[in-house]
Amino acid sequence: MSERSFDIIEVRAGVEADNDRHAALVRERMDREGVYLINLMASPGAGKTTVLCRIIDALSDRFSIGVMEADMDADVDARKVLGHGVKAVQLHTGTSCHMDAKMTMKGLDAFDNPLPDVVILENVGNLVCPAEFDVGSDMRLMILSVPEGDDKPLKYPLMFTVSDWLLVNKIDTAPVFDFDFTRLENNIRPLNPDMEIFPVSAKTGEGMDAFTEKLADRIAAVLAEKRGRTV
Amino acid sequence: MSERSFDIIEVRAGVEADNDRHAALVRERMDREGVYLINLMASPGAGKTTVLCRIIDALSDRFSIGVMEADMDADVDARKVLGHGVKAVQLHTGTSCHMDAKMTMKGLDAFDNPLPDVVILENVGNLVCPAEFDVGSDMRLMILSVPEGDDKPLKYPLMFTVSDWLLVNKIDTAPVFDFDFTRLENNIRPLNPDMEIFPVSAKTGEGMDAFTEKLADRIAAVLAEKRGRTV
Repeated sequence: MSERSFDIIEVRAGVEADNDRHAALVRERMDREGVYLINLMASPGAGKTTVLCRIIDALSDRFSIGVMEADMDADVDARKVLGHGVKAVQLHTGTSCHMDAKMTMKGLDAFDNPLPDVVILENVGNLVCPAEFDVGSDMRLMILSVPEGDDKPLKYPLMFTVSDWLLVNKIDTAPVFDFDFTRLENNIRPLNPDMEIFPVSAKTGEGMDAFTEKLADRIAAVLAEKRGRTV
Repeated sequence: MSERSFDIIEVRAGVEADNDRHAALVRERMDREGVYLINLMASPGAGKTTVLCRIIDALSDRFSIGVMEADMDADVDARKVLGHGVKAVQLHTGTSCHMDAKMTMKGLDAFDNPLPDVVILENVGNLVCPAEFDVGSDMRLMILSVPEGDDKPLKYPLMFTVSDWLLVNKIDTAPVFDFDFTRLENNIRPLNPDMEIFPVSAKTGEGMDAFTEKLADRIAAVLAEKRGRTV
């Protein structure tokens, strides 16, 4: 067997090509069944679960919501989310450091029919691999937390390139860190000129209303299009 | 082609088995050439580069030091480290979210002979994949930063299991976050009863002397054994 057969990049390329086919299947299903799927991605400790609970609280009057929690083998997040009165599914990714489209389809199958209006996938905490795998979502929502630093687009460019919206979380801690919003934006724009950026604190609630209102409007517009009627 | 041929877990298992063989080659070389190799791992933004510069400043009187900076395609860290007067090599991992042993060997080849006494690999910022790939190091040094939270061992158990020493960084920000050191330790011990834990602030310097002194002693002892004489 030649050395080339173990080349990591080529193996991953193969996996990713297969993934794109499955992502298209998820997307077709979401369109057919009139569901909005969000792929929520961030580093470990950026505040994914806290943001998620805020989104649920803000949107649950208007939409039914389901949550898929992806973790290597924990269930702490699913337990937190259940307290917010939504259906949650815990997905164990084993040694895999990201969700792929096939795993996402399996997660969707775990919900009762019909699916909720909105399904939010809380991806594995990781700025690298989840960026490479389209799960068939309508929106890739990324969180960067202030303590991580404003230079992160330089280090993890793909995540900033593929994500649609960015929450800059933990802005209540900005005084403690040397974090410059202008520098962050200057680092983002060459990668993603259209990225919507929302400075928030999921902990104090600052900035969350502006974000969740815009998110609700976006979801309603897309669902109306998918279902052929106003939602 | 059957679905099975695209199973991610099996592909990764194959890559990892191959990696173990290459890690043994790196380890043999480090022993033969009398070099101490550190694999530095953490989340994005945990403070890897700042810690690294502190280590260099504290140890460079006693040892020659080389640094390998692994990033997907940036060079900001290598430029920072160069300011501290050591030889630095920038490794671009492309779409790969971790360093493996073969890539590490390539990085070592980029230094002049003889190799420095100590080579520090700053791995890609990621708590998942780097934990799965032994690069042939003498020590796996992990950083967790206070803003990430004390629950991280529950979410990223493998990283806490395989790492030898843990720096809990950014302790100067502890008042801002609900971070409990006892809770952290209770989460770590079932995974890694022997892990050495050092609370530090790489920014203010708090706790860094205690850590770097212990690290220097450990390196000196291992190098003495590798070289058959006191270092």
